[in-house]
Amino acid sequence: MPFPLQPGSTIGVLGSGQLGRMLAAAAARLGLRTHIYADAPGPAFDIAAETTVGRYDDWAKLTAFAHTVSVITYEFENVADATAQHLAKLLPVRPGPKALTVAQDRLVEKTFLSDLGIAIAPFQPIASAADLAAALPTGPARAILKTRRLGYDGKGQVGIDATTDVAAAMAEIGGAPTVLEQRLVFAREISVLICRAADGQDVVYDIPENTHRDGILRQSVVPAHVPPALTAHAHAIARRIADALDYVGLLAVELFDLGDKFPVTERLIVNEIAPRVHNSGHWTIDACAVSQFENHMRAVAGWPLGDPSRHSDAVMENLIGADALAWPSLAAEPGCCLHLYGKNEARAGRKMGHVTRLRAK
Amino acid sequence: MPFPLQPGSTIGVLGSGQLGRMLAAAAARLGLRTHIYADAPGPAFDIAAETTVGRYDDWAKLTAFAHTVSVITYEFENVADATAQHLAKLLPVRPGPKALTVAQDRLVEKTFLSDLGIAIAPFQPIASAADLAAALPTGPARAILKTRRLGYDGKGQVGIDATTDVAAAMAEIGGAPTVLEQRLVFAREISVLICRAADGQDVVYDIPENTHRDGILRQSVVPAHVPPALTAHAHAIARRIADALDYVGLLAVELFDLGDKFPVTERLIVNEIAPRVHNSGHWTIDACAVSQFENHMRAVAGWPLGDPSRHSDAVMENLIGADALAWPSLAAEPGCCLHLYGKNEARAGRKMGHVTRLRAK
Repeated sequence: MPFPLQPGSTIGVLGSGQLGRMLAAAAARLGLRTHIYADAPGPAFDIAAETTVGRYDDWAKLTAFAHTVSVITYEFENVADATAQHLAKLLPVRPGPKALTVAQDRLVEKTFLSDLGIAIAPFQPIASAADLAAALPTGPARAILKTRRLGYDGKGQVGIDATTDVAAAMAEIGGAPTVLEQRLVFAREISVLICRAADGQDVVYDIPENTHRDGILRQSVVPAHVPPALTAHAHAIARRIADALDYVGLLAVELFDLGDKFPVTERLIVNEIAPRVHNSGHWTIDACAVSQFENHMRAVAGWPLGDPSRHSDAVMENLIGADALAWPSLAAEPGCCLHLYGKNEARAGRKMGHVTRLRAK
Repeated sequence: MPFPLQPGSTIGVLGSGQLGRMLAAAAARLGLRTHIYADAPGPAFDIAAETTVGRYDDWAKLTAFAHTVSVITYEFENVADATAQHLAKLLPVRPGPKALTVAQDRLVEKTFLSDLGIAIAPFQPIASAADLAAALPTGPARAILKTRRLGYDGKGQVGIDATTDVAAAMAEIGGAPTVLEQRLVFAREISVLICRAADGQDVVYDIPENTHRDGILRQSVVPAHVPPALTAHAHAIARRIADALDYVGLLAVELFDLGDKFPVTERLIVNEIAPRVHNSGHWTIDACAVSQFENHMRAVAGWPLGDPSRHSDAVMENLIGADALAWPSLAAEPGCCLHLYGKNEARAGRKMGHVTRLRAK
């Protein structure tokens, strides 16, 4: 094995979005090069040392890409099994294919978490309108019907209650295999950003408290309003998941905190996991010595993990669609770290950038 | 004028070294692209959106380069007058050619500073061995003979005292035009990093205290051990220089502090200026909301300048030559921000990277 990679080595990254862009920037700090492979050019292309545009099932192109790099990682969890397996035959893919298999199918993920003894919302697979009709919540209870695959930022989800028109809901979800998940009443959403090295060591970041709107993350505030014991419990849950996946790299675990009416060990429900750097960790670029992006690349490269401690409190806000047009005033704001992803077109719902506002701890 | 440049615009940078690399990284945060033009590939090439290798007197290539960018800046002060003037006819060059003219000739620089009423070490031009013989210091006094042009990191300098062999000193300096400068006894070296916008507004960073060895910067510590009144005085000196140059971008002013036996207004002697981002400002990447690199690119792009305030104390150390081989232990050190420049060969005296150690204020 070539690990740790020497400075000057090249890390392959699947995906050209803003996460790939920030991964490339983080690698560059360490003197590591990146080669981005994606099915279309994107924000990551402008700062990568090398780029390839190719389909994710162009085996010859993927092989040629693999021959230019020392290890491969990815910025999105929907890398096809066949793609990951093709590349894994040629060189290490980190995180490994198991994390992808688990994370890209909600039913597999929920079963995996449940089997680990981790609390999740009650769920059941839904294959037909009849299944859904039989599973409709009663009274004021609510649920969410989610596609098993390819949902993100609130896409592929339909709210369900006792009055739902079953046929319309199935039509809206497009007939894809789904999971029906009970909608919980919670006090807050938080996430754990854990980075695990190949030797099993890990580092964890302070926990952000996350606010979504229209299914899209709007804001992450650090620190979250949770007691130290809950933080420790959340970290332990994330560690159990990362260990079970023999994970290498940064893993994000999204959780619901049911609130302080519950004992610490019963407050946390895992919502979902993401086998990649995560939007709720963008604040780490500006508020930590070593960001989630850099620690991910360190883990992938077999380097020692870096200090995740937070030197400042932080509020991260996504700039979505036209929000980014406010860049001149955001640029001038004291304590404001502005990040724009270099996307040309500010479409509604598109993540164009983010700001992290720093405050003294 | 196209200012402020819109996100997605491209800034041209002359020079492919680590300063260009960190400028490109800073621009990328803002969604600005960079096109690096240099006479040889270098560390900046790996993270620039576009690159061109060309001689600095290849007018056709420089013109083609200029047509791909909206504004041009540079990472080194020895851009030839003819190059700067050729480009300035095509589009804005920031900082303007006057800063280059002043900064790249020590005699012009010293005369400029002296004419501004700024205290500098006594100096005189030396054109011949006879000049030097007549100007030799007496008793224990010491001086430094410096080439007027192209010296950096202690190169092109010879120590001079009453016993100096004049012919040998002239031979060592290679017969280039020189300036003889009185060597001062000072308490510390400090620097001011000031960033000035085209409209005359500026921001200044907290002052680092700098330690050199063998003519190369080794360490910058922030804050410097100087009283607030001295900081204000240093900032005022830098502002006077930047205003006189109608400067746009980051200007570094290196000063000697003669120590607290002198009144505040007589403690500071300007050593030299650098019309570019500066090694003594590398700590701003990790200890400030907006780094010297980002503020330089903001000024060049006509953007609002960003908050230069320091959220942490910092000690920056250069990794020179074999120092960089310690990267595995530096990577693992708590509070340590590691930066490697992607240079292949760790030659003696070569700046390979730096670390910034953060401490709570």
